[in-house]
Amino acid sequence: MDDMKGIKTLNLKLTEPEKLREQVRYYFHQTYSIDEKLYDSLINDETFYLRADPLRHPLVFYLGHTAAFYINKLIIGKVIEERINPSYESMFAIGVDEMSWDDLNEANYDWPSIPNVKRYRDLVRERVDRLISELPLDENGIGWNSPWWGVIMGIEHQRIHLETSSVLIRQLPLEKVRPLDFWNVCPKAGAAPQNELLPVAGGKIRLGRDDNSPWYGWDNEYGSISFDVKQFEASKYLVSNAEFLEFIEDGGYTQERFWTPEGWSWLSFQKALMPRFWRKEGQNYKLRLMTTEIEMPWNWPVECNYLEAKAFCNWKAAQTSLPIRLPSEEEWMRLRDSHINTDQPLWDVAPGNINLEFWASSCPVDHFGFGDFYDLIGNVWQWTETPIYPFPGFKIHPIYDDFSVPTFDGRHNLIKGGSWISTGNEALRDSRYAFRRHFYQHAGFRYISSPEPVTLHDEPYETDPTIIPWCDANWGDNPLGDKHFSQQVMETLQTTLKKLQGKKALHLGCKTGRLSFELARTFAHVTGIDFTTRLIRQAIQMHEKGFIRYIRVEEGEIVSHVEKHLKDFALQDVADKVEFWQADVSNLIAKFTGYDFILAVNAIEEAIKPRRFLEEIHTRLNSGGILVLVDGYAWNPDITRAEDRLGGFRKDGEPYGSFEALNDILDKEFELLEEPRELWQTLRQQQRLHSLKKVQLTIWRKKA
Amino acid sequence: MDDMKGIKTLNLKLTEPEKLREQVRYYFHQTYSIDEKLYDSLINDETFYLRADPLRHPLVFYLGHTAAFYINKLIIGKVIEERINPSYESMFAIGVDEMSWDDLNEANYDWPSIPNVKRYRDLVRERVDRLISELPLDENGIGWNSPWWGVIMGIEHQRIHLETSSVLIRQLPLEKVRPLDFWNVCPKAGAAPQNELLPVAGGKIRLGRDDNSPWYGWDNEYGSISFDVKQFEASKYLVSNAEFLEFIEDGGYTQERFWTPEGWSWLSFQKALMPRFWRKEGQNYKLRLMTTEIEMPWNWPVECNYLEAKAFCNWKAAQTSLPIRLPSEEEWMRLRDSHINTDQPLWDVAPGNINLEFWASSCPVDHFGFGDFYDLIGNVWQWTETPIYPFPGFKIHPIYDDFSVPTFDGRHNLIKGGSWISTGNEALRDSRYAFRRHFYQHAGFRYISSPEPVTLHDEPYETDPTIIPWCDANWGDNPLGDKHFSQQVMETLQTTLKKLQGKKALHLGCKTGRLSFELARTFAHVTGIDFTTRLIRQAIQMHEKGFIRYIRVEEGEIVSHVEKHLKDFALQDVADKVEFWQADVSNLIAKFTGYDFILAVNAIEEAIKPRRFLEEIHTRLNSGGILVLVDGYAWNPDITRAEDRLGGFRKDGEPYGSFEALNDILDKEFELLEEPRELWQTLRQQQRLHSLKKVQLTIWRKKA
Repeated sequence: MDDMKGIKTLNLKLTEPEKLREQVRYYFHQTYSIDEKLYDSLINDETFYLRADPLRHPLVFYLGHTAAFYINKLIIGKVIEERINPSYESMFAIGVDEMSWDDLNEANYDWPSIPNVKRYRDLVRERVDRLISELPLDENGIGWNSPWWGVIMGIEHQRIHLETSSVLIRQLPLEKVRPLDFWNVCPKAGAAPQNELLPVAGGKIRLGRDDNSPWYGWDNEYGSISFDVKQFEASKYLVSNAEFLEFIEDGGYTQERFWTPEGWSWLSFQKALMPRFWRKEGQNYKLRLMTTEIEMPWNWPVECNYLEAKAFCNWKAAQTSLPIRLPSEEEWMRLRDSHINTDQPLWDVAPGNINLEFWASSCPVDHFGFGDFYDLIGNVWQWTETPIYPFPGFKIHPIYDDFSVPTFDGRHNLIKGGSWISTGNEALRDSRYAFRRHFYQHAGFRYISSPEPVTLHDEPYETDPTIIPWCDANWGDNPLGDKHFSQQVMETLQTTLKKLQGKKALHLGCKTGRLSFELARTFAHVTGIDFTTRLIRQAIQMHEKGFIRYIRVEEGEIVSHVEKHLKDFALQDVADKVEFWQADVSNLIAKFTGYDFILAVNAIEEAIKPRRFLEEIHTRLNSGGILVLVDGYAWNPDITRAEDRLGGFRKDGEPYGSFEALNDILDKEFELLEEPRELWQTLRQQQRLHSLKKVQLTIWRKKA
Repeated sequence: MDDMKGIKTLNLKLTEPEKLREQVRYYFHQTYSIDEKLYDSLINDETFYLRADPLRHPLVFYLGHTAAFYINKLIIGKVIEERINPSYESMFAIGVDEMSWDDLNEANYDWPSIPNVKRYRDLVRERVDRLISELPLDENGIGWNSPWWGVIMGIEHQRIHLETSSVLIRQLPLEKVRPLDFWNVCPKAGAAPQNELLPVAGGKIRLGRDDNSPWYGWDNEYGSISFDVKQFEASKYLVSNAEFLEFIEDGGYTQERFWTPEGWSWLSFQKALMPRFWRKEGQNYKLRLMTTEIEMPWNWPVECNYLEAKAFCNWKAAQTSLPIRLPSEEEWMRLRDSHINTDQPLWDVAPGNINLEFWASSCPVDHFGFGDFYDLIGNVWQWTETPIYPFPGFKIHPIYDDFSVPTFDGRHNLIKGGSWISTGNEALRDSRYAFRRHFYQHAGFRYISSPEPVTLHDEPYETDPTIIPWCDANWGDNPLGDKHFSQQVMETLQTTLKKLQGKKALHLGCKTGRLSFELARTFAHVTGIDFTTRLIRQAIQMHEKGFIRYIRVEEGEIVSHVEKHLKDFALQDVADKVEFWQADVSNLIAKFTGYDFILAVNAIEEAIKPRRFLEEIHTRLNSGGILVLVDGYAWNPDITRAEDRLGGFRKDGEPYGSFEALNDILDKEFELLEEPRELWQTLRQQQRLHSLKKVQLTIWRKKA
């Protein structure tokens, strides 16, 4: 049986297809079995229906869930066509959101019997086994787009639930669980070593799983980001129960000043006096493990949530007058990489208490050394200061589109390093898991000392429905399938631009900046201006970070996440010629002058005072300079008052169009160079809904 | 000087260009001169600034207006480029709306001096004369699209103002005007003849100026409509002042029962006791003419507005117990055509008191005979029961787009036949002028006796902004310039339809009906159904009358008027196979069944209960029948409640699209025949603004 433990996640790039097929089969069955082994800890079937945690489903759900997940994902991925039990596959599909307080009524659920769920598990196991036999496989192995990916995803998903279910079991009443030999508790315990801060050299570090990684990764692990980490000091050991007790005994749980507002709010609500798995009996402390309770092992790592870890650090900082805090993700990785050059699939024996290779519990914090440090990986997860965020290059896997995205909200912090029960993908260097800061896993922490602030990664997905269409219009595809609008504009201006190489351009109404960057291919300097802060912010992020992100509505509540990079458009090399400003095009300050070329897109129809804009625009242009107007004259009463419109009314009894008005206003300072051109500008609302604007492009030369 | 009178409107199809050019010049100068001759009746320049009618501009405006009109229209028509006096051409552009009571303050106007206006008139006369010399002309003559059309329009416009200004002069104080020999009053007056009703044979009549007519026509005169006029009786004479006096003396002006509500309201407001140009002095009645007042000529035709004429008829009907009323336009024309087979350009001498060929006033009603009748044309205009309406085939002339359209409101009744001062186009058979019913011109009436109701022409231009885009989407052009949406659908269905020749089709969500008619090319019977009454009304009008009309927004307040005919699409011959019903597609009554083919366009996304619709649609189809769904699944919460949507949400944790839902719902009764196709559906909001919907076309066969 023990061959269930210590298994490594698969090398999916193995070039021997039949060998890989059998490895998948083995990995699948071992995972399936160990999952069931976990539930053997429950004393009887009734226990499956108890709520270990008031905010989670009872374990019967997870018993069904890890099986149904295979079928649901393989159906979504169109790998299989037939369901096994549609009712189960619906009932076991979605867990309770950990923050939803209104769905606690178990009466909403009519859970089936355990034997029935187990029979269902068996049917799924047979079906997936058959699929493993039948699915074509070649020497390219298994990639992100392979139908096999859903199988591996199911296995790795089940391995995550090994860990989370073990936490739920740990919350069941002691009398409802039983110890099993398989889940062997570490027998070592004793006094904790004195912790100390040791130096960690600074240096460059790159995070993000390579697209060609041979090992399975969840969506949030891909992409790439680099850091130059400053040197810092880190605690030699994880914080032990003993070290944490000092905080408690010093009144840590009663002094608001150590806690973040979120932490204090949680503490007040929970009325917590110590970490959740601690129990005080008289003057003695006990520690609840998965199926047993033991005398407090003072030299084991403390397990707490982020809020408690953070309060501890604040207390420690106050005590020591050092800048004590939790590490950022990159600092944590820097420390790891400076002492570990292996990874789970490559090692013979785990260098730490991880991958179920030693115990089914924590162990002393001074047991597994890595150079001067201990427990750089394994034993318990380690909280970081970094809320999870997508790396640049992030994309969502189509068959599990809500795995990571809901956690990119700044409220889910990363835990790193894995625990004793972290297996499969969880035990890899590049794995990234994040939980709400009040949440419990087998997680503790290491503190560091550093004066550097922690970088927050605030490049969220744009969700403003008035901004998204312009992100997409600038950087997405043309829904009509022909040339992108920016290309149409640039091609129309080709001859005009030839004479302006190396000159200075102003782009008014630049929205999220695409055409400003395009102009920088020609001009030595481009100023992009838009009035809407939320639009120009996207242009600036594209300029500063090289990418933007937004969420498109596909149909109803179904969305897709889009990330666009300057380099996708080969614009990264001209970016340093562009600058962006937020300003009202009808009321520009004096500094925006001396241009040889001005492009104003939708600027007239979106101006509060379009006449003022047109009357003074010549002052921004050098003599002989070119003004290009691209506009739909789609007057919006919320922006331009009726009396301020240029055209679209009767003047002296005759229809007076805006192009006519342009001529009347610009005539004094400009000459019209060519016949107006008409272009189609699309604005996407949803996958199937767009607005379509016919815009007129006119080219004017400032008279000498 | 007298060669100014009796001039005929020009034959614009003359094939001798230089001769035509000189005829235009002559016609222009004579018209210009006679216009000025009219103002010679004013005793001095101050009189030009008097308001003859409180709801009209003073005559100085008309002095400038008839000249400025040439320049304004030639500029609009891009025939000339330079204005002569932009300020005058703005000030003299628009008359006061006869119904606008809030613009009476002459202080708003700073009229120029009469010598200045006259100098301006001279400049215009020179400019137009030069244009007449310079404009190219060939043997095709002058057509609707010719640059010359603006010149002719200016002349004919000036001729209309001869008449309307003469009415304004008639309203000036007597001491402000002077008689001139040129404006010679008819010396004949005496007792009125006894009027009587004479029979008019029924028969067919066709109205509408032919596109190839050699004579100038205003927009509303073109198009074509036919009637089968029932026989009726008509009064031998126009109603004379004597005959009208009977009505007055019988208390006609004090008894509400003879008046329409509109008429009684007008009478109460005006406190009128007799027609406007009558004046009672002791027991004597006087009649105001253009520049003089005379003893009441009892045998001249009474001049009154429609409301007075109508009240007279009601009184007469009550007196005689006969169905006395005013004639409709077609009855009036039937009577005219049964006794007149000439027209102004063709006659040597006018057959009636018209075209300024006899007097500058009315004359006795028994002077000009036409068979048994008198004054079938000429003397005074004759009010009809018919509010002006556009004939089918109506189109607007682009340089004068508001000549007729504002009068198509059911409140402007046609006057026919011309008066003594009707010249040019006004004196033609096909001319059509209409005024508000309370308005005064040199107009009276003839009554008829007929039990037939008068047909009102209620095919107004659709103005509902929610309906117009669908008129245009069904019957207008595809703004993207490629194939029309209905053609795309029909071509996609080509193979499917081949097997269904002569069968029975149901079209759900038929909007304004285009695809229902298209389906009738294949099917023996097509039922078109839509839930929106205002949409289906357009489909029904297209079916019953063969055309629809709608007003499109071009830019801001600028609109265009569109008329579309079934025969433009070669659909007139299949129309009798189509029927239209208003019904809810989610809740159809039992009669709509037994179809071989159902096409539902946008029906799902616009259904209140789309699931119910899809679940029961198979009951409408014969076994093996075809269901075609064309839909954008663009769920609108105002129509379909969130919980009733088919897709566009997460189901069991996974994105659930509407196409997936279609499969789930239809699977039991249908099989999907082909891969779904995607089509682009456009909906026009304005000239430059459209919405664009990607709709999915799926073809399903009902299982046997």
